[in-house]
Amino acid sequence: MSKKTKVNAAILIIGNEILSGRTQDTNTSTLATWLNSIGVKVNEVRVVPDTEKTIVDALNVLRKENNYVFTTGGIGPTHDDITAESVSKAFGLKYEIHKEAFKILESYYNPGEFNEGRQKMVWMPANAELILNPTSGAPGFSVNNVFCLPGVPSILKSMLGGLKNRIVGGEPILSFTISLKTVESEIADSLTIVQNKNKDVEIGSYPFFHAGKLGVSIVIRSENQNKINTCNSQIQEFIKEKKIEVVDR
Amino acid sequence: MSKKTKVNAAILIIGNEILSGRTQDTNTSTLATWLNSIGVKVNEVRVVPDTEKTIVDALNVLRKENNYVFTTGGIGPTHDDITAESVSKAFGLKYEIHKEAFKILESYYNPGEFNEGRQKMVWMPANAELILNPTSGAPGFSVNNVFCLPGVPSILKSMLGGLKNRIVGGEPILSFTISLKTVESEIADSLTIVQNKNKDVEIGSYPFFHAGKLGVSIVIRSENQNKINTCNSQIQEFIKEKKIEVVDR
Repeated sequence: MSKKTKVNAAILIIGNEILSGRTQDTNTSTLATWLNSIGVKVNEVRVVPDTEKTIVDALNVLRKENNYVFTTGGIGPTHDDITAESVSKAFGLKYEIHKEAFKILESYYNPGEFNEGRQKMVWMPANAELILNPTSGAPGFSVNNVFCLPGVPSILKSMLGGLKNRIVGGEPILSFTISLKTVESEIADSLTIVQNKNKDVEIGSYPFFHAGKLGVSIVIRSENQNKINTCNSQIQEFIKEKKIEVVDR
Repeated sequence: MSKKTKVNAAILIIGNEILSGRTQDTNTSTLATWLNSIGVKVNEVRVVPDTEKTIVDALNVLRKENNYVFTTGGIGPTHDDITAESVSKAFGLKYEIHKEAFKILESYYNPGEFNEGRQKMVWMPANAELILNPTSGAPGFSVNNVFCLPGVPSILKSMLGGLKNRIVGGEPILSFTISLKTVESEIADSLTIVQNKNKDVEIGSYPFFHAGKLGVSIVIRSENQNKINTCNSQIQEFIKEKKIEVVDR
């Protein structure tokens, strides 16, 4: 695949523990940051429960609307781990033992330790491609444009390196942040003018309250550094006019 | 509305900053924990960009599939704050100045400070009900079953108290956690048997790596304490049999 300017992805977070509030998801931020760095823009995130029909339906929408889908969670050995079976159903593929995954886990564990519970982790959609796991053995997998990763953040992170050459991104999305000692309503009008002059650049405004400082971060995002520079100049102009202090953040 | 056994909600997180990975969403966990405590189960979370059509489409799906929808973000004074206008479009309502909100902000700010930027925050769907904001003045609002809250976590939290009497929950969802010094694959089979014997109870299994401890937390969730107790007894049985150590977590 040749480099495209716009490549997008969806993230599907699978797990009751996120929906109950028990677990704070951090995988979205990890994946989004990493995807941005390789030129893939995240269009949408969905968090769904460990319910087959919901997972299948979400997968079938997201995989058609996006260049890539990344799922997290539900690939462990317990009864509530149903991602592999759900992906099989979404693609109409057989759910079966993946021979290469079997070999990997068979040699990962001590003799006799590769029990039935662990063997559940080698059941995958037919012809899935493995995503190697340098942390805890059990691989993730991909089918077409859907990449299935584990929910444990440290394991997920360790698997991204091996995935990089399988994702073809567009131009990396660059960003520039200007943090100001002000409130949003002081800059809203001027910022709207800059946004209207630069419609193909994404300009975000985010109030912050941090370490006793109150302020606003303006974030300019584009694949084109020149466009970011142009917006930045225009913003610097009104900052100077309004005598607003720039702060570190 | 009388108490229903099952009351569910969706959360719609609105904001490019979450999708870019720049900001770690924590509002999902805050809202989900609070909703659980008042008997509302979160069915789904979506994170969408600051794009009107995407917000409108998501709202129109989620508000029909759930008893409640909670949105976060996009109700400030800047150009990228388009939640109120999007909600108006989703419901086919006029987007107009909310008189009560106008009065609140007019008296909140010093004379002359209630500028055009700030006035944007009183534009809402016609006949919206306000959600008062004890932290920073600008109210959120609700239309039918859709409740719109700000994105800044501390402000969002401060507004939940005032919202409680407007949400009718079902039976509170109770949970019980058993943390074990083991790995998931050691308990997977036994846990599946317990789940199969108690199909209407939600049993989740979550590996943890925390402060040098490696283990699994089993979380049992139900509206019915007796059902939780039954599952717990059955789990305690196999834990004893397998000589697995229970740990604090």
